[in-house]
Amino acid sequence: MTTGTAEFSKRLDQTAEDTEALLAKLLSDTTETDEIVRPKRLIEAMRYSSLGGGKRLRPFLAVESAAVFGIPREAALLVGAALECIHCYSLIHDDLPSMDNSDLRRGRPTLHKTYDEATAILAGDALLTIAFDIITRDAIHKDAQVRLLLTRALARASGIGGMAGGQILDLAGEGRFGDREPVDVARLQQMKTGALLRFGCIAGAILGQSSQKEYQALDDYGKALGEAFQIADDLLDVEGDAAALGKPAGADAALGKTTFVTQLGIDGAKQRVRDLLARADAALSIFDGRGDVLRAAARFVAERKN
Amino acid sequence: MTTGTAEFSKRLDQTAEDTEALLAKLLSDTTETDEIVRPKRLIEAMRYSSLGGGKRLRPFLAVESAAVFGIPREAALLVGAALECIHCYSLIHDDLPSMDNSDLRRGRPTLHKTYDEATAILAGDALLTIAFDIITRDAIHKDAQVRLLLTRALARASGIGGMAGGQILDLAGEGRFGDREPVDVARLQQMKTGALLRFGCIAGAILGQSSQKEYQALDDYGKALGEAFQIADDLLDVEGDAAALGKPAGADAALGKTTFVTQLGIDGAKQRVRDLLARADAALSIFDGRGDVLRAAARFVAERKN
Repeated sequence: MTTGTAEFSKRLDQTAEDTEALLAKLLSDTTETDEIVRPKRLIEAMRYSSLGGGKRLRPFLAVESAAVFGIPREAALLVGAALECIHCYSLIHDDLPSMDNSDLRRGRPTLHKTYDEATAILAGDALLTIAFDIITRDAIHKDAQVRLLLTRALARASGIGGMAGGQILDLAGEGRFGDREPVDVARLQQMKTGALLRFGCIAGAILGQSSQKEYQALDDYGKALGEAFQIADDLLDVEGDAAALGKPAGADAALGKTTFVTQLGIDGAKQRVRDLLARADAALSIFDGRGDVLRAAARFVAERKN
Repeated sequence: MTTGTAEFSKRLDQTAEDTEALLAKLLSDTTETDEIVRPKRLIEAMRYSSLGGGKRLRPFLAVESAAVFGIPREAALLVGAALECIHCYSLIHDDLPSMDNSDLRRGRPTLHKTYDEATAILAGDALLTIAFDIITRDAIHKDAQVRLLLTRALARASGIGGMAGGQILDLAGEGRFGDREPVDVARLQQMKTGALLRFGCIAGAILGQSSQKEYQALDDYGKALGEAFQIADDLLDVEGDAAALGKPAGADAALGKTTFVTQLGIDGAKQRVRDLLARADAALSIFDGRGDVLRAAARFVAERKN
């Protein structure tokens, strides 16, 4: 198959569109099949922060890693939707006044600015929770053990040793709990942003009940992609354009944060991205042509402008 | 078996002790088996809010509902620990300044007073997340489908139609988002506090792969127990003693909240509790003597002094 830029963009957009439609359905404010109360304000807040935006990169990685094993698209989209709920919850909580205190996200006021802090905290909690409802759905795989492994992997990517743990290390590095604590940028970002991206990449291997070698290949790929993603983010914070980003540039420098760029310099960071792309390519070699879209995804992540 | 008060207290205390030890192990700050980073501050905050206190009523319900079906205690304790993590996360987030703004919990400063808001939000998030790691553990049941059903039931008890949804309805009823919204106290509490208690009661039926009739019996029992629990709570807020409660009494009245007591009056509320205990007893009748401890648990919940 071709993986030229236009073809890749089309695939990415299609998954974003399908994810949007699926999330809109999963977070519907009416339901025909059960009698549970779905409090209007909570649902609206969850929809505000999870619909209408984003490249849906994490669901894309889940869909494309699953495609390597011929897993039905509908199953992978459900996994992607669960993953995206976790991602969106993390953005809501990170933006709170007591965390990063951000007013803008994707070019719109953050949730707590549009609603209020209590609603934002609860909407984040509810998105985190519903992810673990979605990931257990029967439609994902007929084998309960597969769904269980996905559930556990998602919990670990999100928890103490993953995203939540990375966020507290990040705050500690900013000196939020006293003196600035020393930061191992690679380790911190591997947890804070890397773990969820990596989950998207291994999701296909779990769904496909792959060999250990194939699982390892996707894990290596995901690890390289996650670091490339973050270095690109750090470079955009220095070189990027606020309009394209949908948020102010230069936020890291203003906080005096240790980033890949402060650690490696701009040229060093760019070289590191090239090395990581080579590593991602190498990891995918066992899949031959079936890895082409994931190869293109790594390049896309590294070269994106927002 | 006997279910006299002394015998019941002993069983309750034993489960509290076992739950404490299990949580201490699950939330250990060192680990021998994996290489994940466990950020010290996050772990300490999680331990602060989940160790050293509480009657562990929810784990007790999980253990005793499982005992009805002869499920090994160790398996039920893991389910109870997952449930308790959700309960503790909900207390942390409910206590936050933007929610109930509480300074005291179980006679100690709340987590955000001892640490800070950002740490409290993340510790709550991480407790919610680790619950879904714990509930998938192999030691809970050999059949993955059973663990999956538990996972899904726990997510639903905690989410939009359960605890998180109940909390936003509660805040809306206090007029936190504009005019006070009308409150259906029974429905609100069935979600906010009832759903997790009810999960503890049905956990045994899921673990025991019970008949639909047995599941329904435990669900009916759990529903009655949950409502009795909340009415007792509302009565304690009016008649209780701050020292025994470990938090100020009269908080509901100060907020002008609609409660079971404002709706039914003190005598009406007490009569309702008696009716609910009769309903709980009736639901358990199909289990004969195997339901004795759960019968005693309902009475304990209704008559507790804190």
